Amino acid sequence: MRKVAVVGIGHAKFGVRTDVNINELAWEAIKLACEDACLTPKDVEFSVVGSGFSSLGYEEILAAVTITEYANMMLAGHVRCESACATGSAAVHIAHMRIASGISDVVMALGVEKMTEVDTPTMVELIGRAGSYLWEYENFGCSFPGYYALLATSHMAKFGTTAEDLARVAVKNHHYGSINENAYLRNEITVEDVLASRLVAWPNKFLDCCPINDGSAAIILASEEKAKEIAEKNRKPIIWIKGVGVAGDTAYIGARRDLYSIRSSELASQRAYKMAGISPEDLDVAAVHDCFTIGEILAYEDVGFCKKGDGAKLIKERQTYHDGKIPVNVDGGLKAKGHPIGATGCSMVYEMTKQLREDVEEERQVKVKNGLGMAHNVGGTGHSCYITILGRES
Amino acid sequence: MRKVAVVGIGHAKFGVRTDVNINELAWEAIKLACEDACLTPKDVEFSVVGSGFSSLGYEEILAAVTITEYANMMLAGHVRCESACATGSAAVHIAHMRIASGISDVVMALGVEKMTEVDTPTMVELIGRAGSYLWEYENFGCSFPGYYALLATSHMAKFGTTAEDLARVAVKNHHYGSINENAYLRNEITVEDVLASRLVAWPNKFLDCCPINDGSAAIILASEEKAKEIAEKNRKPIIWIKGVGVAGDTAYIGARRDLYSIRSSELASQRAYKMAGISPEDLDVAAVHDCFTIGEILAYEDVGFCKKGDGAKLIKERQTYHDGKIPVNVDGGLKAKGHPIGATGCSMVYEMTKQLREDVEEERQVKVKNGLGMAHNVGGTGHSCYITILGRES
Repeated sequence: MRKVAVVGIGHAKFGVRTDVNINELAWEAIKLACEDACLTPKDVEFSVVGSGFSSLGYEEILAAVTITEYANMMLAGHVRCESACATGSAAVHIAHMRIASGISDVVMALGVEKMTEVDTPTMVELIGRAGSYLWEYENFGCSFPGYYALLATSHMAKFGTTAEDLARVAVKNHHYGSINENAYLRNEITVEDVLASRLVAWPNKFLDCCPINDGSAAIILASEEKAKEIAEKNRKPIIWIKGVGVAGDTAYIGARRDLYSIRSSELASQRAYKMAGISPEDLDVAAVHDCFTIGEILAYEDVGFCKKGDGAKLIKERQTYHDGKIPVNVDGGLKAKGHPIGATGCSMVYEMTKQLREDVEEERQVKVKNGLGMAHNVGGTGHSCYITILGRES
Repeated sequence: MRKVAVVGIGHAKFGVRTDVNINELAWEAIKLACEDACLTPKDVEFSVVGSGFSSLGYEEILAAVTITEYANMMLAGHVRCESACATGSAAVHIAHMRIASGISDVVMALGVEKMTEVDTPTMVELIGRAGSYLWEYENFGCSFPGYYALLATSHMAKFGTTAEDLARVAVKNHHYGSINENAYLRNEITVEDVLASRLVAWPNKFLDCCPINDGSAAIILASEEKAKEIAEKNRKPIIWIKGVGVAGDTAYIGARRDLYSIRSSELASQRAYKMAGISPEDLDVAAVHDCFTIGEILAYEDVGFCKKGDGAKLIKERQTYHDGKIPVNVDGGLKAKGHPIGATGCSMVYEMTKQLREDVEEERQVKVKNGLGMAHNVGGTGHSCYITILGRES
């Protein structure tokens, strides 16, 4: 397999972006990624656009076409992909394969979503339909805060996890969001704030839930030869894709093995570690899927940062802060950045690249020892999981 | 690059399939493809689901998840992709890359769509939005018969192509549809029938347009080693993917180089021929994108079966019949099979594989000389084009 590197990254400000249309929002990230890699849009040989709500959250039914035309990179060819909330990582994965296979040398993965043009109840319904629509949504009327409440209560019952433990995740992620200029929520909060916030679906309070918003992030990947050429120009360390892992699970949440873990996370992480030839202990930093605070605790356990049931302890001991044993979501995570579905996975790879380049704000820069970072992106309630392991050294 | 083979193919009956939901429709093709390859669904290491109208044409927002659960292949992982009317070929392309890169040995590309649950005017609007929505659809109200009328009138003005020439394409494709049991329209028609049929958008009459319907097709791809193992079991010739080519063009049709050719077809075919190391003359058979009759004539020219402007001559001389110089759409094409968006590209690869295996009805089996076939799949009005070249010898 050919080696593949991240050579250019770009990130738009996440938030309520009524100031731009989908093409303009995408371009904010594309422009920065091209500049970062000292490339022009015409140097990109193929584009993979991760966007889940094309013609639902925003007006264009063919987002990949309008975006690549706007960015003047359409002749190269493009595809749009979707894997629910893991859509952005799926885009990175397809772009990676295009280079690893030898078909192209420079490929862009773009994650982009507009979700705030649609009224919130409609968007919550659309997200709620991500599952088994005819069975679960129609019969039980469950939406995402409810699904994740099922996971949280199961974890609480099995391992004694508390609402305070969940709240601590939100506190950490808001802290780091307050330092990250691309984040949507920039305010510090306390455990008390979380516990006192409006109940959504017990034990999920308002501040346990990540916000719906708009955003984009772009990742340009390149072959080894091309990456070395670019490194001579932009003088930035080359960050390689060391491993990828993908897994899925049942649409119907009632058919899962259990509700206190996400099996697709376990499987995908095992596959990615194997491909990269590493163990969870080797990682310097990670971005995990904290769409709800329980999501981050489940991730700690599912990908092996601690043993099953010890997730709450990890955050209680502050081991996932930037100076802890395994820093997690020190960019604010979905919780503070917001979760524009298609953009999230690319935003995670953006952050891992910046951390491994040692190029983020000092108050949240992790110590880079092994030069390894991981992006963990869950689709739906574990309907899919995409893992990307990045590494600095060759 | 690792070699990649088509080892299993399956095709559901295209038509108004109100008898099945999206998962059941997909399973009809998956089951046949698994049987063809002597594999079980659990042998599939990754699934790529091509479906464009998820939550628009049918109820499920996460089609890849519900389908892979229904087929019991969800743990392996999956992604959904979309490239307008070329969605099915995009699925084949992603599946190809996953094996070519060395990540997997057995991958399924599935194309599936349900379009008849939605009332026809709504579906026509949705398809019409495939372009540049805010600019073209909102301002000019153009829908697809109108877009292809622009291409047809441009070709007529430039090269003297006539309504009779267009009608001849429909006559041929209905003839072959009448022999193909998976086709939707099984009736023979005459040039007079086409010319006398209801005007849709001049020069497109009702019988110049392909029908909107439901369908699925599944293609299982495998690595060389795995393909040889399977060939010992199913005793079928191995059909290799020899070349792939992708290109795009502007969303806004008014910004195209000209309207009497599809530039993305030209570019994608050149890329595919180069990768396969062949010329158009080497092909024994082709499936091209005849969403409207002019589409087939444009394809003849754009991919090099004749020189620019000579497309009408090719059909007039019956050179694209199964015993002609270059047989095209001898399964009925989109015109007679119908065009369930996501399924079409996979249906084309299905047909090319069957032809190269010399396994279709005698009255439409082409003479296999070089063992080479091509699937040409256009997205939108040329917004994208995906070409897949298949070859029988090693």
